[in-house]
Amino acid sequence: MTCDPVVEGIHFVRTAPPRQIGWKAMARNLSDIAAMAGTPTFAVVSLGLRPSTPLRWIEEVYAGLHQAARQFGAEIVGGDTTHVRGAQFIVVTLLGRARRPVLRSGARVGDRLFVTGPLGNSLASGHHLTFTPRLAEAQWLRRHARLHAMIDLSDGLARDVRHLVRPGIGIELDSARIPRRTTLAAALYDGEDFELLFAVAPASAARVGRRFHEIGRVVARPGVRLDGRTLPARGYDHFA
Amino acid sequence: MTCDPVVEGIHFVRTAPPRQIGWKAMARNLSDIAAMAGTPTFAVVSLGLRPSTPLRWIEEVYAGLHQAARQFGAEIVGGDTTHVRGAQFIVVTLLGRARRPVLRSGARVGDRLFVTGPLGNSLASGHHLTFTPRLAEAQWLRRHARLHAMIDLSDGLARDVRHLVRPGIGIELDSARIPRRTTLAAALYDGEDFELLFAVAPASAARVGRRFHEIGRVVARPGVRLDGRTLPARGYDHFA
Repeated sequence: MTCDPVVEGIHFVRTAPPRQIGWKAMARNLSDIAAMAGTPTFAVVSLGLRPSTPLRWIEEVYAGLHQAARQFGAEIVGGDTTHVRGAQFIVVTLLGRARRPVLRSGARVGDRLFVTGPLGNSLASGHHLTFTPRLAEAQWLRRHARLHAMIDLSDGLARDVRHLVRPGIGIELDSARIPRRTTLAAALYDGEDFELLFAVAPASAARVGRRFHEIGRVVARPGVRLDGRTLPARGYDHFA
Repeated sequence: MTCDPVVEGIHFVRTAPPRQIGWKAMARNLSDIAAMAGTPTFAVVSLGLRPSTPLRWIEEVYAGLHQAARQFGAEIVGGDTTHVRGAQFIVVTLLGRARRPVLRSGARVGDRLFVTGPLGNSLASGHHLTFTPRLAEAQWLRRHARLHAMIDLSDGLARDVRHLVRPGIGIELDSARIPRRTTLAAALYDGEDFELLFAVAPASAARVGRRFHEIGRVVARPGVRLDGRTLPARGYDHFA
């Protein structure tokens, strides 16, 4: 069960195409279900709308919400609407099923770390409004790899990679291998990528490596390092 | 599965006690589960917060959310937080179980209509921040009455009663019997009551009438009437 708010002026600009705004609001939640290797089922939608908003805009937002839900086998079954005076918002809550959910906490020393696609520059390029949640990739991994831990990247690799760290394990990243849309800094510190970051057993690395990008490994030494040097926990912080 | 947004400046004033704001945000959703004679189970919470909001305020909101959840057997299992520049919001999504959910659509000609408590003046009196969701009452009704249709009152009796109307049935209300906190107009047109409005078979009316307030009946003549005269559909409309 996951919920993820999308707020005007924060997650989308007022002039963004409303169908893409709806797509994004649903796809963020689909990405959360993908991160646990789950299958999405049912969603409800809370909308905060200014009374001056044209009906056409709302219909387009809903078209985007439905399109993303349908494409990945989910269904919108209800919701509620309120008026707001300032920024509009869309909160989708999504249910999913997983026989054996993949958690953030399962990484083991020796595991190899991968990402499903290139990182960075998502906001500037518009990728954040049109991205594909990695549900199919997660199902493939669940079937074809010894998948120990997984997370979706929303606040930047340098920040989110820390969610895989536990006492007694650390992470080494190799900058040359991080797939990027523009610069390394953007790949590390920008947010809204919605690619999956995951750890698999070494025995799965060769097979997984033919499809995805290996960017590092799980080690016994605590902390997160890039090319051997401590990586600062920068990235997107809602309350920085 | 229900979700119900609570927005600063709309559902609460900025100076309201944060514990009560949290209580209300959860209790509104509990009321939706009560309206189907369900049992609440799990909730997630989306918060939109200004970065300047003191941590203490947020802790108090969460204390209220947890208190309401716990009191009625539900549990908060996750959520997400975003920053906002303007009005803060709380969106609770709540799951519930019901072996045989009671719907809005089941009223039959001859049924008697009841409410669980006095109506009106909820916003001015502060009742809307401290009300008790009618989960216990709904369970009692499910066991002890032939309960055909139910709804919780959030937008005023005169508006919400229409949700029980279907083609081929109408509703007659008796103004003298409507329990009220202040005036009849307030009982009809104010919102945020969160009492249950329900229809039971005539055979159940005597037993139910010892506990609750009978306010009308379901008839074959279409429309909604008060003391025999058509009742306008006024009440709280978010987009009027």
